[in-house]
Amino acid sequence: MRSLAGIHGPVVTPFDATTEDVVVDRFTANIRAHLDAGLDGILVAGSTGEAALLEESERRLLLEAARAVIPPDRVLLAGIGGESSRITIRRARDAGAAGADAVLVVSPHYYTSSMTPAALRDHFVRVADESPVPVLLYNIPKYAHFALSPELVQELSRHGNIAGMKDSAGDLAILERYVQSQRDDFAVLTGNGPTFAGALALGVTGGILAVALYAPAQSRDVYDAAMRDDADGARAAQARMADAARIIVGELGVPGVKAALDEIGLQGGIPRSPLRALDASARARVTELVRGLSRTEPADRARGAGAPVA
Amino acid sequence: MRSLAGIHGPVVTPFDATTEDVVVDRFTANIRAHLDAGLDGILVAGSTGEAALLEESERRLLLEAARAVIPPDRVLLAGIGGESSRITIRRARDAGAAGADAVLVVSPHYYTSSMTPAALRDHFVRVADESPVPVLLYNIPKYAHFALSPELVQELSRHGNIAGMKDSAGDLAILERYVQSQRDDFAVLTGNGPTFAGALALGVTGGILAVALYAPAQSRDVYDAAMRDDADGARAAQARMADAARIIVGELGVPGVKAALDEIGLQGGIPRSPLRALDASARARVTELVRGLSRTEPADRARGAGAPVA
Amino acid sequence: MRSLAGIHGPVVTPFDATTEDVVVDRFTANIRAHLDAGLDGILVAGSTGEAALLEESERRLLLEAARAVIPPDRVLLAGIGGESSRITIRRARDAGAAGADAVLVVSPHYYTSSMTPAALRDHFVRVADESPVPVLLYNIPKYAHFALSPELVQELSRHGNIAGMKDSAGDLAILERYVQSQRDDFAVLTGNGPTFAGALALGVTGGILAVALYAPAQSRDVYDAAMRDDADGARAAQARMADAARIIVGELGVPGVKAALDEIGLQGGIPRSPLRALDASARARVTELVRGLSRTEPADRARGAGAPVA
Amino acid sequence: MRSLAGIHGPVVTPFDATTEDVVVDRFTANIRAHLDAGLDGILVAGSTGEAALLEESERRLLLEAARAVIPPDRVLLAGIGGESSRITIRRARDAGAAGADAVLVVSPHYYTSSMTPAALRDHFVRVADESPVPVLLYNIPKYAHFALSPELVQELSRHGNIAGMKDSAGDLAILERYVQSQRDDFAVLTGNGPTFAGALALGVTGGILAVALYAPAQSRDVYDAAMRDDADGARAAQARMADAARIIVGELGVPGVKAALDEIGLQGGIPRSPLRALDASARARVTELVRGLSRTEPADRARGAGAPVA
Repeated sequence: MRSLAGIHGPVVTPFDATTEDVVVDRFTANIRAHLDAGLDGILVAGSTGEAALLEESERRLLLEAARAVIPPDRVLLAGIGGESSRITIRRARDAGAAGADAVLVVSPHYYTSSMTPAALRDHFVRVADESPVPVLLYNIPKYAHFALSPELVQELSRHGNIAGMKDSAGDLAILERYVQSQRDDFAVLTGNGPTFAGALALGVTGGILAVALYAPAQSRDVYDAAMRDDADGARAAQARMADAARIIVGELGVPGVKAALDEIGLQGGIPRSPLRALDASARARVTELVRGLSRTEPADRARGAGAPVA
Repeated sequence: MRSLAGIHGPVVTPFDATTEDVVVDRFTANIRAHLDAGLDGILVAGSTGEAALLEESERRLLLEAARAVIPPDRVLLAGIGGESSRITIRRARDAGAAGADAVLVVSPHYYTSSMTPAALRDHFVRVADESPVPVLLYNIPKYAHFALSPELVQELSRHGNIAGMKDSAGDLAILERYVQSQRDDFAVLTGNGPTFAGALALGVTGGILAVALYAPAQSRDVYDAAMRDDADGARAAQARMADAARIIVGELGVPGVKAALDEIGLQGGIPRSPLRALDASARARVTELVRGLSRTEPADRARGAGAPVA
Repeated sequence: MRSLAGIHGPVVTPFDATTEDVVVDRFTANIRAHLDAGLDGILVAGSTGEAALLEESERRLLLEAARAVIPPDRVLLAGIGGESSRITIRRARDAGAAGADAVLVVSPHYYTSSMTPAALRDHFVRVADESPVPVLLYNIPKYAHFALSPELVQELSRHGNIAGMKDSAGDLAILERYVQSQRDDFAVLTGNGPTFAGALALGVTGGILAVALYAPAQSRDVYDAAMRDDADGARAAQARMADAARIIVGELGVPGVKAALDEIGLQGGIPRSPLRALDASARARVTELVRGLSRTEPADRARGAGAPVA
Repeated sequence: MRSLAGIHGPVVTPFDATTEDVVVDRFTANIRAHLDAGLDGILVAGSTGEAALLEESERRLLLEAARAVIPPDRVLLAGIGGESSRITIRRARDAGAAGADAVLVVSPHYYTSSMTPAALRDHFVRVADESPVPVLLYNIPKYAHFALSPELVQELSRHGNIAGMKDSAGDLAILERYVQSQRDDFAVLTGNGPTFAGALALGVTGGILAVALYAPAQSRDVYDAAMRDDADGARAAQARMADAARIIVGELGVPGVKAALDEIGLQGGIPRSPLRALDASARARVTELVRGLSRTEPADRARGAGAPVA
């Protein structure tokens, strides 16, 4: 039985610079390096993995290649969410057959206004009923253009094959409601780097964090401090990686993450079209941010009494 | 050489009520009925066709079945837009091989904030360079969560293999700029039923209209009046179908269109999960609206001088 | 009894460049020039008049000064909408006492989520019950962050002291519903220059148009063509002023309108802080657009058959 | 010299149920009760005080009445933000004359798209230059429809007469950047009850919290636990008031806060039109939530390891 605690890496998908074909050996080289750097698990075909840009056969190829290099004591998660329940279920079976430990299911969202709580509930229940491995809900309003309500998450958390959720929104008031309203073994994972320390303070189980791909030690510092109930230490560690998370993942997106991997000697390279490689100025920013990760000192700021006003 | 003038039907995809499998003979029966009712062309795998919910093999099956029943003098359009340039190009080739006359390419939109004008321009140019048949741009902010700018459309209209566009937004101030800024043989088609008469008054080439699937005569009245420069007649005809377009397509969506087809004796049936069939109250509303289509008399309203205010 | 038909000018409020005080004689000089140029009425304290930036005493001063120079056969409208019913009613009485022919009431909008249809209905009814002069509803989602529903407008149009509405959204599908659902003497005025011809084609009574302040002849051409049922002529005239309306009013806003007035020899000058005067590059754009107004030839574009696609 | 540390109450403005006139003695009775309950300061004419619905003379009346009952060792803050710099400065002088210790300045927002960082910076600097008392910036995207950027806050924090800010957005990732980027005596106050514990964990100086008007002891529990670095205690106390903050303030708004005051024997009463008193069902919900405040036990939830997934 594997736990979802800890830090998981939503790995990128490396492409050939000319043909844009998937390059599997660069993909597995990255995974080996991430595991060596201490990550607890790997997510294949997430948003950072450009899943939306992949053919079905490529998804299967990547999952099988990943499982082959991930030892049994580390977790393999597979992003499988599609617009139809049927495609999502078919992918869940493919993922189970390829050895995934759990599947991550983003809300269908193309027909945005039809995605009522009832439609979403039925979808997730159907998928969970049919999936051979546990299901994780995935809340990412940035791309889905709506959020999962805490009430719906609470209801779905009672399903025996829904093991948890990933929240990439980073709204801590809502995250707190996700955390508090669930049964004890429902895993809430954050996908939002800039609020990692805050999320851990609210009791999340762990994170699936793109920043952890190029800043694993710094991410681990945040997590370890939180686990020993050192809130100040977690906040200080968070401050050291804050800009590298917010700007590279939040502003520059997948091409930024790939550039950051290049910067630390891993396999980033180009994104697949229509995503575009960073221009020189953005790349220089990534260089500076990644180099800054090793230099930054802990924040050391006492709470002030505030300005005297009279 | 086929023109895109006239009214095209974005056909639905019928599914088995139990298995949700595609039912091809119901699909082709609908197409025959739409052509008999006078539609000038057929769009397969559009938003109304639940394209986002289909497997790749189903898309091909539907295109081939459609071409088999559409005579050479009627247009077959194929919705092919995907998130990656590579998938979109592969589908364009599939569509060309299946006999499509042109392909409709919705903007990639999952990575919303990365879809800059430059990224979109490169994407559409790559697709148009590689597509064996002409490309139509597709603007649908309701689902893509952003609009194509008139400046980008103008630039892309110079590409020899970009034959036109479909606009489903229905913002006539922007539509006017799409229409005015293009080369003369660039076809602008509206996908917005409630503004069909207004769009024709601005000079659009025709429409790809879900309302025309269940109200073909009423849609034709609008078009014919506009073609003989009878603006008042076009507006009156528009008024007769206004509610049936706005409420069934705009509010009830694909399940509403399928219910309206059931109502006129064609093959609607259930949508694919997570879309849900209408409840009884919404279905009764569709019944009333469809029956009202044959009864409604032309609007007869003179321009008033406005209220006297003093 | 005065009608609201025709074109009304939402006049600017000139300020001293140093003190930002209202300069009344520049204000009245503008009004005389607008009336000489053929405008049918004047709106004081609209959004273009920077009403939100004025003290109550300044509103009264401007209304009285306006009435003194507007002959009895031209209409004086007063913008009075406030956040509370009580302030709006007090301003309606002030405006009536100052000689306004009707008052324009923007929806309260600060407490956005509380502005339910029921709350808005009660507000407008209270104001209309107490106002000594007829009330015009004002729909401007750009600033209010929500739109008035056609259903609410229809209901309110039955009130004996609600004489009409101004719509600045320019969504013609909704505008058509405003126009069609009202009693015959309910005046619908558009405040959206880029869709003026389209709005007239739908049957609106007239316009309250910032573009008419610096392009009165071009605005009149659109209106006159529409009145003689010359839709093509209206569209051609619209095309001649399209950029000057869209860019100066829509993109550059009040500072743009003031710069355009400077350009034609009227009194524009600076806006009040925090609005900022245009920078040199934007000002040059205004110069070019205003000069272009007199040179532009009618659009001459036939409807094409669209691109041949096969 | 007074500090802004602690918990401040954004008091409501009681109105006569028939005339909607301000009732000053109910207003001062509330203030006395809030101070007796331990609040450190009072904000007059905030959003909860229905400031947008008040006449200028009423704002002055309320400030003077408040100062008369607030002892010199407690803070009096005045909401003064207007759409123009000139009105805001005039109100700052009025507030200083009435004895306010500092003024709270919401961003101008009517001309939303013109409120660039440069326009906002100039506005706040002009107001701070002229204000006789220190200025607090006010970030409330729910009503202003945009947020103050951390970069702008950092720049403005260097002004000698800008003493701090209030943030009601409750986005902790941005709040953290407000807190970290300022000079040490810049006071960041949260206005967001549901994230009070989280905000204190990030180092804010205190709160201006509507929930503290009807749940002062529970709010104090959160604050006191945070001050003694007991993060778990703060979170437990937060959980006890979470629903009462989120539903009454966040969903029901000012009418909800007034109903909650009625519930604890203070002076709530009706809001001013167009705000509407709660209906019976919402009022019953407030009753239940307020009664629940005294009963709720601390949350007692350990961090789980998450669901085992394989």
